[in-house]
Amino acid sequence: MEKIRIGIAGYGNLGRGVECAVKQNPDMEIAGIYTRRDPSAVKPLTEGVKVFKTDALEEKQDIDVLILCMGSATELPIYTPKYAAMYNVIDSFDNHNDIPKHFANVDAAAKKAGKLAAISLGWDPGLFSLSRAIATLALPRGENYTFWGRGVSQGHSNAIRRIEGVLDARQYTVPVESAVEAVRRGENPVLTTRQKHTRECFVVAAEGADKEKIRQTIVNMPDYFADYDTTVTFITQEELDRDHKGLPHGGSVIRSGKTGWNEENDQVVEFKLTLDSNPEFTSGVLVAYARAVARLAREGRTGCMTIFDIPVSYALPVSPEEMRAHML
Amino acid sequence: MEKIRIGIAGYGNLGRGVECAVKQNPDMEIAGIYTRRDPSAVKPLTEGVKVFKTDALEEKQDIDVLILCMGSATELPIYTPKYAAMYNVIDSFDNHNDIPKHFANVDAAAKKAGKLAAISLGWDPGLFSLSRAIATLALPRGENYTFWGRGVSQGHSNAIRRIEGVLDARQYTVPVESAVEAVRRGENPVLTTRQKHTRECFVVAAEGADKEKIRQTIVNMPDYFADYDTTVTFITQEELDRDHKGLPHGGSVIRSGKTGWNEENDQVVEFKLTLDSNPEFTSGVLVAYARAVARLAREGRTGCMTIFDIPVSYALPVSPEEMRAHML
Repeated sequence: MEKIRIGIAGYGNLGRGVECAVKQNPDMEIAGIYTRRDPSAVKPLTEGVKVFKTDALEEKQDIDVLILCMGSATELPIYTPKYAAMYNVIDSFDNHNDIPKHFANVDAAAKKAGKLAAISLGWDPGLFSLSRAIATLALPRGENYTFWGRGVSQGHSNAIRRIEGVLDARQYTVPVESAVEAVRRGENPVLTTRQKHTRECFVVAAEGADKEKIRQTIVNMPDYFADYDTTVTFITQEELDRDHKGLPHGGSVIRSGKTGWNEENDQVVEFKLTLDSNPEFTSGVLVAYARAVARLAREGRTGCMTIFDIPVSYALPVSPEEMRAHML
Repeated sequence: MEKIRIGIAGYGNLGRGVECAVKQNPDMEIAGIYTRRDPSAVKPLTEGVKVFKTDALEEKQDIDVLILCMGSATELPIYTPKYAAMYNVIDSFDNHNDIPKHFANVDAAAKKAGKLAAISLGWDPGLFSLSRAIATLALPRGENYTFWGRGVSQGHSNAIRRIEGVLDARQYTVPVESAVEAVRRGENPVLTTRQKHTRECFVVAAEGADKEKIRQTIVNMPDYFADYDTTVTFITQEELDRDHKGLPHGGSVIRSGKTGWNEENDQVVEFKLTLDSNPEFTSGVLVAYARAVARLAREGRTGCMTIFDIPVSYALPVSPEEMRAHML
């Protein structure tokens, strides 16, 4: 059987994660890595894989599905619709508020070109979204809760790094365990932002920097920290490199609902992730759904889809017979 | 919009659960309850709902989806294919070994009649199956574990009731917490049947019955108890009725896998259910997927499907736009 040819656009943590995930999926191979850096300076992990300038994508490459491993803030809104006009594509667009607009743009481009796209794959959005949907269909009367962490938020870490006098930083999002437990007990608590998560910041300050001023700037930063109980710990670069090198993450989607004629029974559904590597797990989901995109495109599907629209059987490399015999 | 008309075939715990679930789904209504008992002796919870003898189904009823609320051992293998030749149907067939055969029978009957069927919906098989699939696609290198309980097994309770001198019984399946914790830590332990679950039996013995003999019969019963550490506690009927009336259940599907170029990172996915009422939760899933069957049948799909084949969007009563805006 011919392998599914995966293009990787962008070669940061996520792109390297996709490369590792392809290695674990024998029905796939890497068609090429596309980067804005100097290709000769990029060393792929996979033997024999070619690296190109992103511009090479402008001339039709032999790719079944292009996985866009770029940022949601400024890159994906441009590049997913752009490449959906030439390739089957998939991305991990995670700006929840802008999903409807992004979907419309990608859908229009893909439909016009007769290509298929899938957006917002990964774990949130992605498997967490699917879990919210599954729990909601089983329990129409209930509440969904999503807790993130304990894990590194790269966006928040970057926000701290932009402060004057900060050399480096790592920010952990931490769920408030008592809130998680109350939800698990089916209490359906009303929780403010502050009651759901705390934020832990590990900061390397420049010599002579005003640490108290840095701390105040962090804890009062609107959107990022002001609505949370935030702790700031100053450490050395050596300590940061030694103790905070990984990108762990995870969290829980919990739905608690009522069933019965008088809604007398409590039912709780939880989907929980405990991840050593956030980008590698996201990549695993992207690669599996790239398989689904390749298959659905072969069946003639075009336009944009989300995880809600794709039967899970399309994302797995086993036959329906095997799935029914061993997984059902 | 016209409501989806649900037929309920079988009116035990599961049938009543379906009735309660339809109440929570305003886009549905009950077309009729079909029972082998005397219809005049059956009192539905829903005002105005008619009760018929099961035979009435032989003459085409005005039903969009017939939900078969019957046992997997002897009834569903006969009745799901039979009614799939006349109606769109859904069942909770849970005899894992016989699923391929059941699927083939139902698929043939439904295809021939131009009807659509979905089998093995509920939580295991059902949402647990979907969770095994989701975790496996994200983590191709890993192991799936399924733990059930703490919860009442009706099959095991019935097996005890058949022993001479036993008046009533309740059996709880209990996961071994240390095994669950080892799996959660990503240790991928090899576990025997005995190491995964224990069985707790609460038994009401007849006056003068030989309790030690009953205990020995239980703990040595092949298939049901012999491979487990089983405890037997004798109680009065009053205690059983007071303390063991409910049908709680639940459990966890856990997959622990490795990612990274050298598989250096541990990733753990867990899907967990904590249910006050097993039949009511199963019913909620059945009713939601009955919606999916009704919609897919309208699109012209025929034959048999499983939870792996059905996009989750079809099971939810919200538009794709709403799902993308609020659930993704």
